[in-house]
Amino acid sequence: MPADLWPDPNALGPVTDLYQLTMMAGYSASGMADKPAVFELFVRRLPKNRSYLVFAGLEQALTDLLRLGFSDEQVDYVRGLPAFGHVPDSWFNQLRTFKFTGDVWAMREGTIFFGGETVLRVEAPLAQAQLAETFLLASLAYPTLVASKALRCVQAAGGRSLFDFGARRGHGPHAGFLCARASYLAGFDGTSHVEAARRLGIPAIGTMAHAWVQAFPTEREAFTAYARTFPDSTTLLVDTYDTLEGVRHAAAIPETHAIRLDSGDLATLARQARSILDDAGRPDVKIVASGDLDEWKIRDLLAGNAPIDAFGVGTELITSRDAPALSMVYKLVAIDGQGKIKLAPGKKTYPGAKQVWRRLSAAGHFAGDHVTGATETSHGTPLLQKFIHQGELTGQLPDLQSIRAFVQSQSHALPGEFKNLDSAQTYPISYSDALEEEAARLGLTAG
Amino acid sequence: MPADLWPDPNALGPVTDLYQLTMMAGYSASGMADKPAVFELFVRRLPKNRSYLVFAGLEQALTDLLRLGFSDEQVDYVRGLPAFGHVPDSWFNQLRTFKFTGDVWAMREGTIFFGGETVLRVEAPLAQAQLAETFLLASLAYPTLVASKALRCVQAAGGRSLFDFGARRGHGPHAGFLCARASYLAGFDGTSHVEAARRLGIPAIGTMAHAWVQAFPTEREAFTAYARTFPDSTTLLVDTYDTLEGVRHAAAIPETHAIRLDSGDLATLARQARSILDDAGRPDVKIVASGDLDEWKIRDLLAGNAPIDAFGVGTELITSRDAPALSMVYKLVAIDGQGKIKLAPGKKTYPGAKQVWRRLSAAGHFAGDHVTGATETSHGTPLLQKFIHQGELTGQLPDLQSIRAFVQSQSHALPGEFKNLDSAQTYPISYSDALEEEAARLGLTAG
Repeated sequence: MPADLWPDPNALGPVTDLYQLTMMAGYSASGMADKPAVFELFVRRLPKNRSYLVFAGLEQALTDLLRLGFSDEQVDYVRGLPAFGHVPDSWFNQLRTFKFTGDVWAMREGTIFFGGETVLRVEAPLAQAQLAETFLLASLAYPTLVASKALRCVQAAGGRSLFDFGARRGHGPHAGFLCARASYLAGFDGTSHVEAARRLGIPAIGTMAHAWVQAFPTEREAFTAYARTFPDSTTLLVDTYDTLEGVRHAAAIPETHAIRLDSGDLATLARQARSILDDAGRPDVKIVASGDLDEWKIRDLLAGNAPIDAFGVGTELITSRDAPALSMVYKLVAIDGQGKIKLAPGKKTYPGAKQVWRRLSAAGHFAGDHVTGATETSHGTPLLQKFIHQGELTGQLPDLQSIRAFVQSQSHALPGEFKNLDSAQTYPISYSDALEEEAARLGLTAG
Repeated sequence: MPADLWPDPNALGPVTDLYQLTMMAGYSASGMADKPAVFELFVRRLPKNRSYLVFAGLEQALTDLLRLGFSDEQVDYVRGLPAFGHVPDSWFNQLRTFKFTGDVWAMREGTIFFGGETVLRVEAPLAQAQLAETFLLASLAYPTLVASKALRCVQAAGGRSLFDFGARRGHGPHAGFLCARASYLAGFDGTSHVEAARRLGIPAIGTMAHAWVQAFPTEREAFTAYARTFPDSTTLLVDTYDTLEGVRHAAAIPETHAIRLDSGDLATLARQARSILDDAGRPDVKIVASGDLDEWKIRDLLAGNAPIDAFGVGTELITSRDAPALSMVYKLVAIDGQGKIKLAPGKKTYPGAKQVWRRLSAAGHFAGDHVTGATETSHGTPLLQKFIHQGELTGQLPDLQSIRAFVQSQSHALPGEFKNLDSAQTYPISYSDALEEEAARLGLTAG
C-alpha cells in the first residue's frame, strides 16, 4: 500500500522533531517536566528586503496546539524506538493523554512586527512548552512570510485588485491553503484555490488556461464557447497565439468582462490592448496581468502607467523567492521564575517573559516599540494579548475579515519609508531599564 | 469556530485552481469533455545551480489522483458560485461522481531527469486530464526540489551520514512529511520528523536542543541527566555556552556516543573537538554538525578534512533557498489524436505524446537522452512507464527502499561533471526525426 503522507489533524503530537520527545521523557525522568517554563517566539533579524513582517497563521496554530495529542499507535511507535528503551511505562502513559494546559500570549494575527520582538509566548509546564516548538515554528513562519510578501504587493498595487494564483507552485498541496488565507488577510482580493476559498469564505477567481484555447480549432471559437458557458464572468486569456490578435477577438465578444495577459512585455501589451479595446468601443473591458509578478514588477508597471486593473500573483507569493524561509526561533527565556538566556556571539537577547509596547506619533504613525518585562507597565499599546489560559481559548478568535481590516489599518500607520521596496529600514526598538539590568545581571549581554 | 485548513485527503477535487472547474464545465457544455487528450508534465529549464533533477512525489501524486473527488458540500459550493449560474445541473451531478479513469505514464520515482523531458503524461478524457493539472504540479514539484537538493548533499558528503532536520522550516507542517520522504529516497539516512519516520518506516533521529541544557543549573548536570535517560543514544549538544568546554564535559560522560556542533566555525571546532575527545580516550565519540548547512558547506568542510561524521541539514533542504520553486508545467500536447503546441517565443516544444530513451556509455554512464513520439521505438531504456491504466494502478508501486537504491544507482551512472557544484551542466538531449517533422509541419517550431 502506498504511503499516505497527509497528516491527521487530530494526532499532530508527533508532527515534530524527535528531540522534543526525548527531552520530554528526560525532563520527566529528572523530575522537571512540570516546572513552569516560558518560551518566546521571535524573528531575530528580518530577511533581506523586508522592513517589517505581518504576523499570520495564529488561528491555525492555536487551534492545533489545543488539540495536540498522540494516538495509541503513535505512542507505541515511540515506545518501540531503540533510544527509548530505558524510559519508564509511566511516561508513555502520560503521552497517551497529553493535552496542552498552559497559557499562550501572542500578538494579534495581522500585527506588523519587527526583528527581535516577541510575537508569541508560551507559559506552560516545561515538557508541554518544549513539545510545541517545532509545531509552532512550522505553523507560523510560513503564513507570516506570505502575508508579509502580500502586503508589500498590496502597497505596490495602489488600490488595484490582487489575486492569489499560487496553488500550483506551493511546497505541497497544503501550502495553497495557507497562502490563500495569508494573502487574503494581507489585503489580496481573492484566490484561485477553490477549496481554500470555500473553507475561508473568500472570493474564488479564475477563468481559463491556454489549454482551453488550444483545445478548440480556433481562438475565436474557444472564446465564443467560453462566453456561452460563463456569460457573467467572461475573462479571456489572449496570449495563446498572437496576443494583440487575441485582444481583437476578445473585443468582438459582447460578454467579455476582462482579458488576461500572461506573458511578454506586460506594460507595452497592456497599453496596446487598452487602445484596441477602447477603439472597439469596449472601455468597460478590464485588463488582468499575470506571469511571474512580484511587488517590484507591479510597482514598475504602475509607475509606467500601464493600464492594468488587476494582478494575479503566483510563484513569488507562495514561495517568495527573495525570502523563502524565515529564521523564526522559539527560545527558553525562563524556568521556575528564573530568567534564562543562551550565550551566543552576536545574538543579544533578553531573559524572562516580555511585553512589547507600540507607540504612535501625533499623526497616528508607528513611532517606535518599547520592550519590557511582562509585568512592567509602559505607555503605548501592549501588543501581546492572552489567547489561551490554562489550555482553553480566552475568547473567540478574530475572524478573517477583521484581521484583514486590522492589517490595512496597520499598513496606514506604518511610516512611508518602511514601504519603500528599494531599501530595507530598521525600526526603532528600545528596551526597559529593568530588562537591561536583568540581562546585565545574568552577565550574558556581551556581544 | 476557527477555520481548519487541513485538507481532507478524500475530497481533494477542489484543491485546485478555479479555472480547472470552469474549463471542465465549458468542455462539457461544448461537447468536448470526453475527447481523448494528452497532457505532459515537464520542467522547461532547470533552476540555476542544478545540472539535473530527481523525480519524486509520484507515489503520493498517483494515490491522490486515483481518489480525486468531490464531496456533496464541495459540489454545492461550486454550484453556488456566481460564475456557474448558467452551468446545467447535469454537470454538477457528474462532478459528484467524478473519478479519474485515464492512463498515466511517468518516469519511475527517483529517476534523474533534465530540462525539457516529459516526466509524466496523462492520457484521459479532456475534462479529467484538465482537472489534474494544479494538483499534479503541487504534488510533484516540491518533492522533486527536495530530492534534487538532497542528492547534491549526498554527493558532497562522500559517504558521511546525512539527516533531515528541516521540519520547523517547512512551508507549513505538511512540508515536513514531504521533505523527510524526498530526502530519504535521495540517500539521506533519517529524519528528525517523528511522524514522517513512523509512516515511512525510516530512522528517526534526534536528541536535545539548547533548551535542555539551559533548563538545568549546569551543562554538566544537563548532560548527566540526559545520559541517564538515554544511555544507548547519548548525543550531546555542546555549544550552548562554551563549545570546547562542552566537548570536555561530554568526553567525561561514559555514555556519550556523539556530540553535536550547531554554531560557530564548524571546521575549526570539529578539529578541536576531535583532539579533545581523542586526548580524553574517546576516539569512539562521533561528531555531528548542523546549522545552516548546504551541499557547498558540506563539501568545503570535508575538503578541509574537518573530522565530521554526520551532518544535519535543515532550512536549506526543506526550502532550498537557492531554488525554492520549480517551474514545472503541464501542457496539452494532443487532443483527438491531433498534436497541439502553444506558440511562445523562446519556448520550443514538441507536439504529441512522447517517450524518453536513455542511452548509456560502455562504462555504464548516462550518455544522452533521445526523445521520440510515444509510439516510436529507439535504443536505450524507455524512461516513461505506464503506472495507471483506465483509472487503476498497473501494479504495486516501488517501495521507498527500492526507490532509494534506484537513486543511488542513477547517481553512480551520472557523469562526474553533473555533480560539480560550481557550474551547472547541460545534458545532451536529441529529438527524433518524426518529432522534428511533426513540429515543423505544425509550423510552430520557430523561435
